Parts: sequence; structure tokens; C-alpha cells
Amino acid sequence: METEGDLRRLTRLKRALSATVSAGLLSAVLVVVWVIHYREGLAWDGALAEFNWHPVLNLTGFIFLQGMAIIVYRHPWTWKWNKLWVKIIHAGLHSSAFVFAVIAFVAVFDFHNNAGIPNMYSLHSWLGMVALVLYSLQIVLGIGLYLLPIAPVSLKAAFMPLHVYSGLFIFSSTIATALMGITEKLIFGLKDPKYKDSPPEATFVNLLGLVIVVFGALVFWIVTQSHWKRPSDQVFHSLQTEASTIVRPALSQHPGGLDPGACDDFRRRGIKQEAVDLQD
Amino acid sequence: METEGDLRRLTRLKRALSATVSAGLLSAVLVVVWVIHYREGLAWDGALAEFNWHPVLNLTGFIFLQGMAIIVYRHPWTWKWNKLWVKIIHAGLHSSAFVFAVIAFVAVFDFHNNAGIPNMYSLHSWLGMVALVLYSLQIVLGIGLYLLPIAPVSLKAAFMPLHVYSGLFIFSSTIATALMGITEKLIFGLKDPKYKDSPPEATFVNLLGLVIVVFGALVFWIVTQSHWKRPSDQVFHSLQTEASTIVRPALSQHPGGLDPGACDDFRRRGIKQEAVDLQD
Repeated sequence: METEGDLRRLTRLKRALSATVSAGLLSAVLVVVWVIHYREGLAWDGALAEFNWHPVLNLTGFIFLQGMAIIVYRHPWTWKWNKLWVKIIHAGLHSSAFVFAVIAFVAVFDFHNNAGIPNMYSLHSWLGMVALVLYSLQIVLGIGLYLLPIAPVSLKAAFMPLHVYSGLFIFSSTIATALMGITEKLIFGLKDPKYKDSPPEATFVNLLGLVIVVFGALVFWIVTQSHWKRPSDQVFHSLQTEASTIVRPALSQHPGGLDPGACDDFRRRGIKQEAVDLQD
Repeated sequence: METEGDLRRLTRLKRALSATVSAGLLSAVLVVVWVIHYREGLAWDGALAEFNWHPVLNLTGFIFLQGMAIIVYRHPWTWKWNKLWVKIIHAGLHSSAFVFAVIAFVAVFDFHNNAGIPNMYSLHSWLGMVALVLYSLQIVLGIGLYLLPIAPVSLKAAFMPLHVYSGLFIFSSTIATALMGITEKLIFGLKDPKYKDSPPEATFVNLLGLVIVVFGALVFWIVTQSHWKRPSDQVFHSLQTEASTIVRPALSQHPGGLDPGACDDFRRRGIKQEAVDLQD
């Protein structure tokens, strides 16, 4: 049975998720308004309207969908599903984000080639390419290890901290790359008035940059709150030490404040849950 | 007594620390080489040589010293010290980083004012200012809560997750801001040949950008490895549930692989250590 405290914590999680989705959607809307209202619109014409697919697809795909994929395990309405379905959504969102990013990359290469602008000269392009290559490796390794039923549990477990760390590193790099891309585009795109004269477009796109930062910060906040992990209101089996453990719902176990005993119990639950999740 | 596994893990931590310090020092050397060899050098003349203090002080202070402050609790040779000394070094490094950043900000405002360039128009300046203001709040709150013996333990504990999260958010924002700053400077500074023509300076500074990213990634790697936290090879007192607990060295307790029991024990130790650390 859920206590009042449980419901309060669940409400907080839902609010954080709503704020994250809202910030992500807002950034997607803002980037579309940017290229339609202030720039040349969208087309596949080898010119500036084709370039515009680069920020639009990177923001809606490489950043927004990637962020959604990262926090998919934190959606309470999926907590009663079979974990496999959530993994499939996680992998599906990441794969979609990757496809968006590849088309975004093609758009800018195509535009550069037609305009006689060299490719891959900027720090923005270097870090963006590093992020894309690492992302492809992350997805292939992730599917091979955690979605396909081939890897031994020991390998899954050993690789999990690296999977989480590299996922968050790639996500941060993607956001940093977007901020550099915004900087480049506002300097190159604004001629009269210039970026330094703060025309409305400059202020508008600076705000878009801050919204992207807020979105990234919210994704990090959600994934670093361990009490917002998938609760284990089912019978789980730990890997080695115990044959089976009935685990209470996480929200009931989360320490409200300072009870180290509750912390212990809660963390212990977390570890077992992680161990079992690897077996899914 | 330390086992072979303990020593191996300690060696890994020391290697990670060496790599982090090396990357940080390399970025500091590279930025100095950049402004001395490729740019106008360093002076307080209101012109470009004064501007150059902006990247030099931000990189050596706001990024390198901040990163060092973040990982100071992970240095094994401080593990036997009274925690208070390490806290003083943590606060001292952050405060020094803040002073470096303020002078770096003054340098660019002074340069802009003399050159008739508007201040605070770019996303780089917006995010940089957000990071600096949050950093000042973080330092004041951090000292008030954790260094001065005034805050109640309950407040310290409640605020700790936010202290850690916001510290890492500010650090990431600082790095993203530096990458935008590099992008701006290479576009504005390189005229003939331009940034897109990839002169040696462009390649050199792009590499500096990647070194900064590697430094940030290593700091994040070190702080997210919970088995590299300050071990508790002393007698600690947990907050509420137990009067006292003899805690074994963390490295002996860290799960080598997949033993959830060991994980439990280790995490339980971690929670108690954290609780006790708050009382220091």
C-alpha cells in the first residue's frame, strides 16, 4: 500500500519528467521556429534550407530523443511492464536518435560540398563526429549485450557501469556540440545586424541554447536520483548470495531523510534489482 | 591487510588521477602556448594581450582548479588525514578557481569596453555568467553548510545530493562555455587564413578543446566510481541506527565482480561513511 510519502515522491518524479519533456519539446519547437521564421526554412536543395535540417534533426533527434531514451526507465507507468519492453523502447529511441543524427550530418556535408566550404575543420565538427561514432558503438554494444539473449550475465554486469557512464558522456558531448553549433551559426549567419548587436534572432537562439542546457540538466537530475529507479515491487532473484528476495516497492523504502538503516535497505534493494535486471 | 586485488584497484585509481592531472596540466600548457606563440601574449593593456588572460585564467582556474577541487577526496594520500583538512583544500581550490574566473571575466569586460564591443551578447557569455553566479552561490553555501560548524547535521545531509549535483552541473557548464569560447575566438581571431582553412593554430586549439573534454570526462569518471571514495578504515559512527560500526577499508570491500552480497556490504558502508562525513 502506498503511503502519503510515497505519493509525494511519485508526484515529484512525475513533475520532473513533465519538466524534462516540456523543456525538450520547447527546444524542438524553438529550433523549428528559428529556421522557419528567421532563416531559409527547410528543403533538401543543397543550399541553406538543407543546412537547416542539421540543427533541427540534431535537436529533435540526437538531443531530445537521446534524452528521452536515457530516462525511459524512470517513467512510472512502465514500471509494471516486463523490463524487456522498456529495453526495446530504450534501444528504439536511441536508434531513432542515431538515424536523425546521421541525416543531420549528411545535410551539413551536402551543404558544405555544394558551397565549397571545407568539412570537419571546427571543434564543433570534431566533437560532433566523436559523439556520433561513440554513439554508434554504444548502440551496437548495448543491443549486443543487453537486448540480444547472447551475452553472459557476468559480461553484462561488468559492462553496465561503462554503459551508463559512456551514455551520459555522449549525451553531454552532444549538448556541448550543439551549443558550439549555435555559436558558429549566429556568428556566420548574422551579418547586418551582427551577433554582437543582439538582434531578436540572436536573443531568441541564445534562449534556445539555455533551454537545451536546462533539458540536459533535468535529464541528469532524473538519472542521478537513485530513489527514482524502477521499483522492485515484484519477486526478484539476486545473483549469488540469496536464492530469492521479496523486495518492497522502492518508493516505500526510500529514506525520507536521515535514516541510514533505511538507506542501507534501499541501496541493497537497488543492487539486487540491478543484478536481476541484467538477467532480463 | 591489503590484498592483491586492493592494490590493483588502488593502482587503477592512481593511474586515473595521474591521467586527469596530466590532461588538466596539458590543457593549461596548451592555452599558454596558444596565447604566447599564436596570439598577442599576456599583458594588462586593455587590448588583445589583456583579453588573452580570459582563456588562460578560465582554463587554469575555472576549469583545472575546479576539477582538482572536485576530485580532492579521491586522493589516496589524503585518506588518513582528518577529513576537515581535505574539506579546507576542497574549499580553498574552489575559492581560488573563483578568483581566477573573476579576473578572467574582468579581463574580457575591460577589453570589450576599450574596443567598443558590447558585453554579454553571446550564448558563451550567458552560460559563462550563469556558471559564475551559481559557482559563487555554491561556494558560499558549501562553506556555510560543510566547513563552518554551524549547520545541523540534518540540513547538511539533506543538502548533500544537491551540493554534488550542482557542483558537477557547474563544472560541465564551465567546460561547455570554454568550448563555445574557443569556437568564437577561432572564428573572430583567424582572418587570413580563416578558421575553415585549418591553419596550424586552428588545429592546435581544436586539440586543446579535445584535451579539455578528456579532462572533464576523467573527472566525471573518477567521481562516479563509488569504490574510489574515501575509504573508512577507521571507527565510524552511523547517525541513528547503530551506535558505532567498525568499517573495513573500502578497497577490500569493493565487489570485484558480481557478488551482490559484497555490493550490499560495500554500499552499506558507503552510506554510513557519508552519514558520518556530514558530522565532521
